[in-house]
Amino acid sequence: MPNFDAGVLCDASEDRLLPAIAQDADSGRVLMLAWMNLEAWTETMQTGRAVYFSRSRGKLWRKGETSGHQQIVRSVQVDCDADTILLHVDQTGAACHEGYASCFFRSVDADGSVDVREPRLVDPADVYG
Amino acid sequence: MPNFDAGVLCDASEDRLLPAIAQDADSGRVLMLAWMNLEAWTETMQTGRAVYFSRSRGKLWRKGETSGHQQIVRSVQVDCDADTILLHVDQTGAACHEGYASCFFRSVDADGSVDVREPRLVDPADVYG
Repeated sequence: MPNFDAGVLCDASEDRLLPAIAQDADSGRVLMLAWMNLEAWTETMQTGRAVYFSRSRGKLWRKGETSGHQQIVRSVQVDCDADTILLHVDQTGAACHEGYASCFFRSVDADGSVDVREPRLVDPADVYG
Repeated sequence: MPNFDAGVLCDASEDRLLPAIAQDADSGRVLMLAWMNLEAWTETMQTGRAVYFSRSRGKLWRKGETSGHQQIVRSVQVDCDADTILLHVDQTGAACHEGYASCFFRSVDADGSVDVREPRLVDPADVYG
């Protein structure tokens, strides 16, 4: 069980939040990092679908509720300090709201230059427009 | 370049911190999540070795400085909001201070039960004792 007392605070909520990593259960690619409060964790475990707490919107974020790009949770791990959550998921569509398979679509080289090395899967305007 | 203005605060520092995920460059396994301030990021990019900011110790943490279990950084990605860092690393020894290959050695089932499904690689007493 995650230790939410060890979480971080944000302006949008008095709940402490823990980082939650979503990793593609098949490819192993890291798809995104989002945040969970206890309520998001509980709903995720009960429904088997990833639910996060949106720091910008200040409320629960059922991943895919707008985009359809939901995450079915295949397995869950917590780290040694029980203050980070790792979800292994089946991702529908693009994990990233910018239309990429993963939110980590930008590489940073040692000289600080930033590079996008993959195509978008979908046009965000088609999903959120 | 990560946006440290979007980071979280912690008691041990006035710097804002961003979560940094370390993923094994070969196996794809997620090894750990730690935190970076701008100084840790800069040193990581300059040296090619993972440097974090320890929230418990309130100072830079050059991964492996005590244990020898350092992380050579092969590539770096930032996410769409530039507020999470993903390192692909060559991990020496065990990533976890408890002696496991990954900090995520505990699985949580839907009923909340927690299970360790892998052996320790090393005895922590041999590393930190």
